[in-house]
Amino acid sequence: MTHKATKIVIITEKLIQDGVARIIQQAGASGYTVVAAGGKGSRGVRSSGRPAVVDAFANVKIEVITSNREMADRIADEVAATYFENYSGITYLEEVEVLRPHKF
Amino acid sequence: MTHKATKIVIITEKLIQDGVARIIQQAGASGYTVVAAGGKGSRGVRSSGRPAVVDAFANVKIEVITSNREMADRIADEVAATYFENYSGITYLEEVEVLRPHKF
Amino acid sequence: MTHKATKIVIITEKLIQDGVARIIQQAGASGYTVVAAGGKGSRGVRSSGRPAVVDAFANVKIEVITSNREMADRIADEVAATYFENYSGITYLEEVEVLRPHKF
Repeated sequence: MTHKATKIVIITEKLIQDGVARIIQQAGASGYTVVAAGGKGSRGVRSSGRPAVVDAFANVKIEVITSNREMADRIADEVAATYFENYSGITYLEEVEVLRPHKF
Repeated sequence: MTHKATKIVIITEKLIQDGVARIIQQAGASGYTVVAAGGKGSRGVRSSGRPAVVDAFANVKIEVITSNREMADRIADEVAATYFENYSGITYLEEVEVLRPHKF
Repeated sequence: MTHKATKIVIITEKLIQDGVARIIQQAGASGYTVVAAGGKGSRGVRSSGRPAVVDAFANVKIEVITSNREMADRIADEVAATYFENYSGITYLEEVEVLRPHKF
């Protein structure tokens, strides 16, 4: 009943949420989840020189369950190439076991 | 000081949050965490035919640290049987290492 | 392009968010992410005897990607020693694969 999948997590600025979502959908993912997030990056300021966000929820944590690792890599590469020169972000992968993939 | 545990993550519609929480507690879990979430499912509309939620936070991400895999499976099965004919949702498991399980 | 890392997740009361963030930064972590959370702990009341939080978002879920396991352990130990006599909380670790560690 379960199968292995790769979860890709992208934590970045809320400003680019729509663009990241477009990349996710163009890669063929069947859905994604967005959570409002705050926090602090490594340099105290964002890539663009705007002030860093510490406690407010101006970031987003976007999660995608991908059916294969190639899709996860494609999303990560495309997001980095498109946005991470000008916006702060981190992307990481986790192995998960999906119990009900067929509807979401 | 640490021990392995299974984390179960249920991402579903906020409407059924209370029902899912009841199932979690009846399964014997000692606690759970709820985060407001938005996102997009696989079919553009929800199971019930209501419009899909894209950017608003009408979904929830519910996490439970279970002390054994059987409890995780029981929660997943019961949530799916009770709700996933009529509501959108995805459930997945992750292996974690718990450092302080005795109080939360 | 990727490397293994340990993610530490601390779910605790919002009241101590700033103190936990200080511990994270003093341990040398380059950043962290905070998400508002609700939920229910193991005893129905908090450690301090105040009423338990069930549905409101009076908790926080704080995530840190650490470059090594020792840093993760140090953060967990320090948070527990400083706060977990008087505040509810759970800490767990997950192994992740980081794709873009250099900027966040």
